[in-house]
Amino acid sequence: MMMQTPLTMTQMIRRAEKFFPKKEVVSRTGSGIQRFTYKTIAERTKRLAESLQKLGIKRGDKVGTLAWNHHRHLEAYFAIPCSGAVLHTINIRLSPQHIIYIINHAEDQALLIDPDIFPLIEKVKDQLTTVKAFIVMCAEGEMPETTIESVYNYERLLQEASGNYEYPDDLDENAPAGMCYTSATTGNPKGVVYSHRGIVLHSMALGMADSAAVSEKDIALPVVPMFHVNAWGLPFAAVWFGTSLVLPGPYFTPKLIAELIEAEKVTITAGVPTIWLGLLKELDENNYDMSSLRSVLCGGSAAPRGMIKAFEEKHGIPFMHAYGMTETSPLVVISSLKSYQEELSSEEKLNIKAMQGILVPGLEMKVVGKDGEASWDGKEMGELAIRGPWIASGYYRDERSDEAFRDGWLYTGDVVTVDEEGFMKIVDRTKDLIKSGGEWISSVDLENALMAHEAIFEAAVVSVPHEEWQERPIACVVLKEGYKGTVTKEELYTFLQPQFAKWWLPDDILFMEEIPKTSVGKFLKMRLRDQVRTMSSELK
Amino acid sequence: MMMQTPLTMTQMIRRAEKFFPKKEVVSRTGSGIQRFTYKTIAERTKRLAESLQKLGIKRGDKVGTLAWNHHRHLEAYFAIPCSGAVLHTINIRLSPQHIIYIINHAEDQALLIDPDIFPLIEKVKDQLTTVKAFIVMCAEGEMPETTIESVYNYERLLQEASGNYEYPDDLDENAPAGMCYTSATTGNPKGVVYSHRGIVLHSMALGMADSAAVSEKDIALPVVPMFHVNAWGLPFAAVWFGTSLVLPGPYFTPKLIAELIEAEKVTITAGVPTIWLGLLKELDENNYDMSSLRSVLCGGSAAPRGMIKAFEEKHGIPFMHAYGMTETSPLVVISSLKSYQEELSSEEKLNIKAMQGILVPGLEMKVVGKDGEASWDGKEMGELAIRGPWIASGYYRDERSDEAFRDGWLYTGDVVTVDEEGFMKIVDRTKDLIKSGGEWISSVDLENALMAHEAIFEAAVVSVPHEEWQERPIACVVLKEGYKGTVTKEELYTFLQPQFAKWWLPDDILFMEEIPKTSVGKFLKMRLRDQVRTMSSELK
Repeated sequence: MMMQTPLTMTQMIRRAEKFFPKKEVVSRTGSGIQRFTYKTIAERTKRLAESLQKLGIKRGDKVGTLAWNHHRHLEAYFAIPCSGAVLHTINIRLSPQHIIYIINHAEDQALLIDPDIFPLIEKVKDQLTTVKAFIVMCAEGEMPETTIESVYNYERLLQEASGNYEYPDDLDENAPAGMCYTSATTGNPKGVVYSHRGIVLHSMALGMADSAAVSEKDIALPVVPMFHVNAWGLPFAAVWFGTSLVLPGPYFTPKLIAELIEAEKVTITAGVPTIWLGLLKELDENNYDMSSLRSVLCGGSAAPRGMIKAFEEKHGIPFMHAYGMTETSPLVVISSLKSYQEELSSEEKLNIKAMQGILVPGLEMKVVGKDGEASWDGKEMGELAIRGPWIASGYYRDERSDEAFRDGWLYTGDVVTVDEEGFMKIVDRTKDLIKSGGEWISSVDLENALMAHEAIFEAAVVSVPHEEWQERPIACVVLKEGYKGTVTKEELYTFLQPQFAKWWLPDDILFMEEIPKTSVGKFLKMRLRDQVRTMSSELK
Repeated sequence: MMMQTPLTMTQMIRRAEKFFPKKEVVSRTGSGIQRFTYKTIAERTKRLAESLQKLGIKRGDKVGTLAWNHHRHLEAYFAIPCSGAVLHTINIRLSPQHIIYIINHAEDQALLIDPDIFPLIEKVKDQLTTVKAFIVMCAEGEMPETTIESVYNYERLLQEASGNYEYPDDLDENAPAGMCYTSATTGNPKGVVYSHRGIVLHSMALGMADSAAVSEKDIALPVVPMFHVNAWGLPFAAVWFGTSLVLPGPYFTPKLIAELIEAEKVTITAGVPTIWLGLLKELDENNYDMSSLRSVLCGGSAAPRGMIKAFEEKHGIPFMHAYGMTETSPLVVISSLKSYQEELSSEEKLNIKAMQGILVPGLEMKVVGKDGEASWDGKEMGELAIRGPWIASGYYRDERSDEAFRDGWLYTGDVVTVDEEGFMKIVDRTKDLIKSGGEWISSVDLENALMAHEAIFEAAVVSVPHEEWQERPIACVVLKEGYKGTVTKEELYTFLQPQFAKWWLPDDILFMEEIPKTSVGKFLKMRLRDQVRTMSSELK
């Protein structure tokens, strides 16, 4: 039979150290840009693991990180799980209340904190019930003043380590390696626990030719934060495969991202649509050499067709749609054209690229419609359910698990269609679908149509209650600079009319300065719905 | 935590059926070339699984195949393991005695046999102790005459199946899925059992961008036989990823391979060096359009540098060296240049490509020299040891397991060096190394040097006993047509002298008509050694 060697993360960092010691990590922190080889990163990672052990961190202990994308966070990504502890990345954009809840609920024993985030933790420290060590991720000279006693400097800890640490060889592949909390519609965030096995298999999926094809030949820039679903797993895959990494650090702008891509010859980058909308604006306004880019990976929410078109046709940058969620590590579906689709017209190809894509090898999916499994005809809607070895089986110690996890499947809450080729398209969130007169209206379809208008920067469509039709759509649009005051509601209706059945058209189009967004840049439809419902009732 | 969904092969054929029903399998059998879609292959595969069930095949039962590379063998590749039985591919080039041993040792309950191989089984049927059903893989009209009672026609079985079969959903990922016996230096062949988990992970490794990068966009031609280490796992990966397959059938010639590559626009092909030597000769003599090829994968034994050079520089065909063995599923090491090596001169790149390559993600390796682990300096020799989830942990019910499997590692019997970049080079088999005066001489290095000579078609170097030096090398060379009788021993010595230390030079160079080979095309050094020792002693 085959060997029972476990799928654990130690092999990843060891491979980088042995086979790719010369490859580089470019890291931007508050102090500027630094460059490290994987040889150095691997050595520092061992020193961090040793330091954590000295501070009393044991196997299975949770260690929280509150940090941007930089080399120290990358070291924590491996030092914590490879020593048998659990890497708990904390979304720093959540409210202080939620951050306190998360740290206490996970029972974090130590926190690794960026200096600019430290004041936030300083303020709430008395409410943290389990944390025994606060490690500030900066040089010794950059330490913030503090009244917390058990504060350590990251670089000093590394200096004081002997450097003789070795990772344990007996980790279980099903042991927890990582953890991330995801916002809930109501109530506290819900925790997802990643296993070594899940992370190893998900990394392999990222490296596959028909998926993101992450390779030693790549220079990868994860714009998606490392505090959110492990930056989509890119740092794990990159280290394993010897891929060069460019980590953009705190408070970056579209300009900085464009500059980093140009200067570092980035080949693959990943982020949510709002990031790419921002970059597109920057590229429209200033000149950059983006020719190194082979793939802009986009997920988190649906990318508007117009944006994909602008990237591909105006700027010649290959754009790759993907779909996933915190509960799925996250890669589930990715838009890689099939060989015979390459022969289609550019408009037809764009239609395919505007869909989320096809299932990556290793997972299974089904689409649950009103009456059992929906047929794959590109029309019948249903909720996407997924299973596989990098899909969560429940939330960490949370009674709400039963809502999403049923019969061995994760019910995603996403309403989708799947076409004859197996390409999946997100139609809506189950809770954002507009139920009008017994039929379903997709808020996402209306949004995409609106965002294809040259004057519109962003658009979100939500439902308002309606006496006769149960619910009706209202569109909220943000105009681009230069178009404000010059575009009328009527013009937008004229634009929409040929594209939709009459009863799909929004009952009103509201001009706004901004669409409220979640901490990871998605439209915050719940808050928008409240605003719109208030505005609508005030208008009456 | 993550779902405990098992890594089983059923997901592979299901993915082909759901996502790639239009993709094609081109199959050459004794009756000619046929084309099938994956939709048809998937349906026929289920029918075969149902038929085997009806014939009494249960979970864990071994089902042997004696067949060439064609669509029916591909169907067996999935029908057998996906129904819970074990696909036992039998090397038809072994001696009848070994084939009988293998079938009885594995306790095969049924055999799937190609019509041209059937006479061989007919002859030995009385010595087969466990086989209850003999299925001949041909159309109904092509059935051979036979006196065996329990003979079935493959196509008739499929016709008679209801078509309502579903694969079981509860297979264990560690359950046996496949089996292959490998020749031993002495005694009976040794059996290796592949698990579902091993095959799934190995397939992922084949799909990774820095490995073979098997993709939906590929048209793959496995020349390596499906009766030998699962045709290096290519059929499994191809079906999973929706890759088009071209299966070359029985008794193919270099001309047929060249014609198939041209006609089917093959992008990736895989085989042993002797196959590629044959193809090279064909390409030198006749014109073919080989421009579709993105990779000629070569393993089984070391490819001579001159051959790689001829493929790459003379014919513009990218050549990819790899290393593995029956015990390793087989992919272990593959020669994919690192990004910064692309800038080297073409001669330097050729030197790298002549090495076997670097370890694929998912495995671990060490090189055990005379005094512990050998250093990675490109010079220090040691035996390669490997571990990982697609590496065997022992031979099937075989006392010889302890020789190769020790302390959780597979000791490969291959002597290698590893350079600073982690590129591994096979120096020799431990048993083929020539031990001369306390030093080691690599037979492989001498062979490669000889095969770079324009007049030489093949060369093998073996040791003869020597009173003073313990062992000394003797070279055996086969000249190309047109050079026979025109090249002298002295010319070859003159050619070798500048490349080696004097004591490395062979004591004699013998001209031969042919080098004896194993059933899979490797030099049969043991037999050659006997021949040479006889010849040497006769000369004295």
